[in-house]
Formats: sequence, C-alpha cells, structure tokens
Amino acid sequence: MMKIGIIGLGLIGGSLAIDLRRQGHQLLGVSRRSETCERAIALNIVDQASPDLASLAEAEVVFLCPPIGAIVPIATALIPHLAPTAVVTDVGSVKQPIVDALAPLWPHFVGGHPMAGTAEQGIEAAQAELFTKQPYVLTPTDATSLHAMEVVSQLVRSLHANLYQCHPTDHDRAVAWISHLPVIVSASLITACMNEPSDTVRQLAQDIASSGFRDTSRVGGGNPELGTMMAQHNRTALLAALTDFRDTLSHSIRHIEQEDWAALALSLQQTQRDRPKFLA
Amino acid sequence: MMKIGIIGLGLIGGSLAIDLRRQGHQLLGVSRRSETCERAIALNIVDQASPDLASLAEAEVVFLCPPIGAIVPIATALIPHLAPTAVVTDVGSVKQPIVDALAPLWPHFVGGHPMAGTAEQGIEAAQAELFTKQPYVLTPTDATSLHAMEVVSQLVRSLHANLYQCHPTDHDRAVAWISHLPVIVSASLITACMNEPSDTVRQLAQDIASSGFRDTSRVGGGNPELGTMMAQHNRTALLAALTDFRDTLSHSIRHIEQEDWAALALSLQQTQRDRPKFLA
Repeated sequence: MMKIGIIGLGLIGGSLAIDLRRQGHQLLGVSRRSETCERAIALNIVDQASPDLASLAEAEVVFLCPPIGAIVPIATALIPHLAPTAVVTDVGSVKQPIVDALAPLWPHFVGGHPMAGTAEQGIEAAQAELFTKQPYVLTPTDATSLHAMEVVSQLVRSLHANLYQCHPTDHDRAVAWISHLPVIVSASLITACMNEPSDTVRQLAQDIASSGFRDTSRVGGGNPELGTMMAQHNRTALLAALTDFRDTLSHSIRHIEQEDWAALALSLQQTQRDRPKFLA
Repeated sequence: MMKIGIIGLGLIGGSLAIDLRRQGHQLLGVSRRSETCERAIALNIVDQASPDLASLAEAEVVFLCPPIGAIVPIATALIPHLAPTAVVTDVGSVKQPIVDALAPLWPHFVGGHPMAGTAEQGIEAAQAELFTKQPYVLTPTDATSLHAMEVVSQLVRSLHANLYQCHPTDHDRAVAWISHLPVIVSASLITACMNEPSDTVRQLAQDIASSGFRDTSRVGGGNPELGTMMAQHNRTALLAALTDFRDTLSHSIRHIEQEDWAALALSLQQTQRDRPKFLA
C-alpha cells in the first residue's frame, strides 16, 4: 500500500482517488480551492486534502489531474517538494507537449491518458469504477525510468482499465482521429445546418431531425472549452486529420457531382466494413 | 373503414399495414415476390396479398412503399387499375422528383415521408407503432386535391405520427441537412481515419475509439445501398449542403491554423446552444 497524491480533485482525479483508496492506498488530495478539499474529505474520497503542494512530500506516486493547460506549470512547481523516487504521471488528453516538457525534469515521470469520462464534471461527479474496461494509454519514452513505468502500469491494471502503451506522438495522432477530429466535424455539421438561409427549411430540419442527426451532432454540441483546449494542445495532429478529412469529403462530393454512383457505393461499402474495427 | 392498398411489403409498408389493419381497415398487400405475399398473410399483416396491381382496383387509398427508385414506375403502372377517386401517396425519402412525376398523372396523389425506421429491413422487421411520435411529412402542391390531402392527413394522424406539411423542395433541402449530409460526413470520417498511413497509429485509434467516435461514425457505417440511393435522388440539395458544410469546415480549419482560439471557442459555444433546437 502506498501514499498516492492526486492534484486536481475533479471527475478524473476524484474517481481515481475513490478506486485507489478502496484498494487500501492512502490518498493525499491537492486542490487549489479549499472548498474542493473540504468537499473531497466530506465525501470520503481522500484521506487528507490541502491546497499546498508541500503536503505531497511523502507521496510515492502523484497523479496530475488538473485542466490540461495547468499540468506542466503545476508539475514544475511540484518537483522541488518530491521525494527522489516519487513517481509522477498525468491524465492529460494530449501527450507530446506534456511529455516533452516533463520528461527532462523528472526521470520517474510517465505520461498517461485514461479514456473515460461522463457528461458531468467536478468532484461531485467522481465515481467508482469509472475506468473499468476503458482504455488507459501510457506514453513512456526512452528516458522514462523502468520504476515509474512499473508502478503506474500496476496501478492502471488495478483499476481494471485496458492498458495501452505507445509513443506520445502516436497517441496524439490517434486521439486526433477518433476524438478531436469528430468534435470539429460534428460542430461544423451543426453550424452548416444553421446556415440554411430559408427560415422554413431550417425550422423543418429542426422539427424532423432524428437519431441520425442526434448521433452525428452529439460531440459537436459538447463542452466548448474542452473542444477549444484540445484543438490548442493537439493542433498539429488535428490539422493533419482535418486536412485529410476535407480531401476525403471532396472525393465524395466529386463522386456525387459526376454521378459516379458506383464509386460512391464502393466507398460506403468500405466504411460499412471498416467501422466495426473501431468498436471491437 | 376503408380498403387500403400497400405496395411494397417491407419494413415501412408492413408496419403501416399492421397499424392500419388494427384500426379496422381492410389491407390489400402487393409485393413483386409471391413469398413476401405469403409471409405477409401468414404474419397476419394484411387481409390479402398478391403480386398483381389489378388487385387494388377497389382500393380507396394506396401507399407506395417500394424502394425509392421503383415508386414512379410502379405508380405509372398502377394508375390504369385505380378507381377515379382513389387516393395515392408514397413513402419515399426524397419528394420533389416523385411529386414532379406523379402530380400531373393523378390529382389525388400526395407525396409523403414517414421519418421512421430501424436498422432492420423487410417484412420480418415490420412492427406496430413504428410511426408513433415520429415526424411524417406530407408535400402537397397547388395541384393536389383537397380530398387526397384530407384522407392521407387523417390516416397519418391515426398513426399518432407528428404531421408536417411543406413544399417538396423544402422537404428535400431539410432532409439533405439532417439526414443525407450526416451520412456522407460520417462516412468520410471513417474513410479518413482508415487513411492514416501508420499501422501503429491506425491500430491504436481503433483500440481506443469510444462513444464519441461510435456516435459520429454511426450513420456513415450504415446501409451503402440506401446511402447511394439517397444521394442519387436528392443530388442537388445534398451537393448544396455538402458544399456549405465544406466551407464551414474550412472556417474552423483556418481558426485552428491561425490559432484564433477565441473564434473557435465562439463557434463551439454557438453549436452547443444550437444543437438542442434539433432535438426538441
């Protein structure tokens, strides 16, 4: 059993704390806001909580769970307080910029990304078994210590998450495809529909939209701050995916313009076969 | 109580027959395939069934429910058999080409589009109350007889469907936005992801794809024949929607290229506000 620090007591940090504490680890919470610290103790999510990074001096492992833009500054501020063998990991949804910044600062750092979430946010949304059977990606580099990788892998497995391991750049390209590109595509669908100049047609479209529109537009109608943040932090991979997507779309537009129905049908047959590969 | 003909005993035709027959109407089925006729009788969906259009000589109302490309040829072949006051309606998912072809041939024709469906097809998938609380659009023109409009409206209301009425062109533009555009956009998302040149990244993307990708890709992984057919029949409106969508997407790409995060955030805030308008 270990002393485990959690910085950022929101949905992810709080849910990590719940599962790890139930295993018998001692959970030390850190949140900027003292009300969140009090709430985390009241909800019995952590053993102790404080706004002070120095409270993690004895932590054997620290999970960095603040909003993605705060991970590197908080880690930098944390390092002077850490024991020399302390393992540090983060939960940011983009990995390369974070690993690039933190790997040189701390040999026992390993980047991580638990692919779990709900529509809710904050400590009140924290729940047990959020990570069960969900992907959890770790992104070690040549500089990552074996010790860090072993400790974090072991903890991830203890959450019953599906552990994947890859290079930070590969992670960022993969999430650009399956997570960040869909947000921009889905949002553009909503925007385009709202561009319809005829009030009658736009109102009718709104009246008769059903499950197809609902599903395709879902992630485009989600949290705007999260969407913007992920575009900022994964800009290069997202732009590559967007450009490729636009080219692909232009192919389909050309098929329809040229009434090449055989080509369109072939392409839709292929997507029908390919989609299940993403949903195994 | 009326004699009601249903041509095409698949999911839509069969489900219409089930609900209308339960109301006490006499249901006369027509299917090209005699096995389907036998099955419709065995399943107790219709009172009688035959491959012969002449069997509808006494029908007071006829629903045309074959695949969309067969609606106009079948209606043209049907007309010589009809009683002079017989009302004809169809269930095609595109309205202008059908209304343009049939309105001059039969004054008691009114175009219709029940917006209901399941992933299944065929007579075995037919079910009661498929249309309950679903949109059902009728597209009368100046040439449509009041008689036809009254009879079909009454039947649609009896299905507990939500009745909408509009010009055929407006219908086609609306379904291009909320039904046909999403299919091409969603399919392009799958194709683009499969274009990823690195096997490692593509495999990782497949492994970690979750609900966001699942929802956004759903309609793009659907029936390729349906997707191709709807593009063929609604080509003009779909191309207009696709072109507008591509322009909208290019705006977002430009925001991300130029790191104009305020503009991206504003746009995502707008889509978060707009999406619920389609899901009332």
